[in-house]
Amino acid sequence: MQTKKIGKQSIVFSSPPSILHYANAVGKKEGDGPLSSYFDYISPDDTFGESSWEKSETAMQEKALTTTLQRSRLSAKEIDYIFAGDLLNQCIASAYNLRNMPIPFFGLYGACSTMAESLLLSAMSIDGLFADNCIAMTSSHFCSAERQYRTPLEYGNQRTPTSQWTATGSGCILLSKNGKGPYITHATVGKIEDKGITDVNNMGAAMAPAAYSTIKTHLTDFKLTPDDFDLIVTGDLGVLGKEIVTDLFKRDGISISSTYDDCGAMLYDMQAQDAHAGASGCGCSAIVLTGYLLKQMKEKKLKRILFCGTGALHSPTSIMQGESIPGICHAVTISNTKEA
Amino acid sequence: MQTKKIGKQSIVFSSPPSILHYANAVGKKEGDGPLSSYFDYISPDDTFGESSWEKSETAMQEKALTTTLQRSRLSAKEIDYIFAGDLLNQCIASAYNLRNMPIPFFGLYGACSTMAESLLLSAMSIDGLFADNCIAMTSSHFCSAERQYRTPLEYGNQRTPTSQWTATGSGCILLSKNGKGPYITHATVGKIEDKGITDVNNMGAAMAPAAYSTIKTHLTDFKLTPDDFDLIVTGDLGVLGKEIVTDLFKRDGISISSTYDDCGAMLYDMQAQDAHAGASGCGCSAIVLTGYLLKQMKEKKLKRILFCGTGALHSPTSIMQGESIPGICHAVTISNTKEA
Repeated sequence: MQTKKIGKQSIVFSSPPSILHYANAVGKKEGDGPLSSYFDYISPDDTFGESSWEKSETAMQEKALTTTLQRSRLSAKEIDYIFAGDLLNQCIASAYNLRNMPIPFFGLYGACSTMAESLLLSAMSIDGLFADNCIAMTSSHFCSAERQYRTPLEYGNQRTPTSQWTATGSGCILLSKNGKGPYITHATVGKIEDKGITDVNNMGAAMAPAAYSTIKTHLTDFKLTPDDFDLIVTGDLGVLGKEIVTDLFKRDGISISSTYDDCGAMLYDMQAQDAHAGASGCGCSAIVLTGYLLKQMKEKKLKRILFCGTGALHSPTSIMQGESIPGICHAVTISNTKEA
Repeated sequence: MQTKKIGKQSIVFSSPPSILHYANAVGKKEGDGPLSSYFDYISPDDTFGESSWEKSETAMQEKALTTTLQRSRLSAKEIDYIFAGDLLNQCIASAYNLRNMPIPFFGLYGACSTMAESLLLSAMSIDGLFADNCIAMTSSHFCSAERQYRTPLEYGNQRTPTSQWTATGSGCILLSKNGKGPYITHATVGKIEDKGITDVNNMGAAMAPAAYSTIKTHLTDFKLTPDDFDLIVTGDLGVLGKEIVTDLFKRDGISISSTYDDCGAMLYDMQAQDAHAGASGCGCSAIVLTGYLLKQMKEKKLKRILFCGTGALHSPTSIMQGESIPGICHAVTISNTKEA
């Protein structure tokens, strides 16, 4: 049998799995933004009815998961595996969401690349004949992330111009061997890139080199140009990181600006919503994908996109110890046709 | 093509991947224990030459990884993917170890089940034709875990009789489509089990129900009895959790005690090393597997084992908020023959 590996990092799926159903749940700020009409559930106060921000994030994930299952008319027992993770220490949003779910669970930590990482491993499981139905899921919550990575909200932390706003949102995708698309057709697995950025208020700069490396590898491995996609979209580089990626390609003589965007630059109204350099967090790319991009694909406004999850793999401890911020980016091609 | 899924949670590999090489690096206490002669590198002072415990853990992982690569005579570029994770917040031991390695990286968070989870996903990648060579790796370090989960060492924390000692160790395994075994032939992916245990000094009790559930599912799905294995071994339940698993099987009328053991009960001399209920941590099962079990298999003293990684998916925050401890267990069959 033939290998599905292309080049050093890429994959072509022999029987591309299909995105069968998806759903999301978001916070108030996300619901006030330009993508508002694409979200399934908008919490009026970000608490999701819970007494702590960590429990709110768990409840938000649960909402995205149960909505996806309801739409699919599949019971939890018909899901082969769930691949999930989040930003909280020990990924507790995912673990506590899933502790009452009878679904075999692979826990991931890919930071904000988790939506792409979970889609990639779900697609590998199905294409590898280990599963018929897999769920890929992630979340982030501004308030739980703020007190874990920075300071408690009550401190009234001042934000620098390059800082990003952790999105409050959870996205969930059911991938299946059956279905009429969109399909996960190709992928590129990221390596860590660390160019020495130490400013935790400039995540876009820290992650941009990984995004550039993975996108470039994907294009090279499959002999493509940016114009072969309707959209190349990174997860949460924000406006600054997006500029850096565009510049890095420009140095190679490649113009990607006409087909390239970033979920972190799309989620908020930058001026009206005081979002500084844009959105970030696992939830950012998860809700833009499940809230906007996949609906654009359903309406055939987008036919083929390269979805690139971007993650910063540092911790507050590593930063206090003077370390720089390692970045990673995983990319999946999502296409309305199975392709060849 | 035929599915490789058996029952709701289990997998049979069609071309079982082979364990090609492996290595480990451990701390002083582990090197003073009964398995001392099986370890590749024993640090005289647990610092591994570094200035912080987190950096020590990273250096220890690096030692296990580079030793494995040296033994394999493969360069990092010939490894298709690495699956790795650890206990530190945001899995920084793995991320900082791998930031200079040109290996596509899937970050995992499976708590102390990570050695089994990473082996399982590596085997799926190879058997699914996505890779020829994968590395599965994890680590834990007593000193970095102690200050993150409990208190800094300087505090002189008192330990309860049921508490376990986080192992200082890292294990690394190179899995390949080529090789003469031992092979990963079957697996069972765990679901979360949470029976309401809230005592963080009794991890064995928190994780035992997940271990029981996964082992029982594995035996049922493949129509096996405990005696079909030379050894069924859990990751880090310690002496108390081991007793609970034995009792749970006894209730079903199944005696597993003659073939069952736990890495956490094997790593230290319980009396002489003041280990209380035994060892724990991602590193515990990783170093017992790479240090003792695989060498027993090489010498044909063990021919077929069920290796069951056990993880507790809580965080200090979830415990402070009154939550109980969710447990998970992933199991892989390691056999000297490819079986049918």
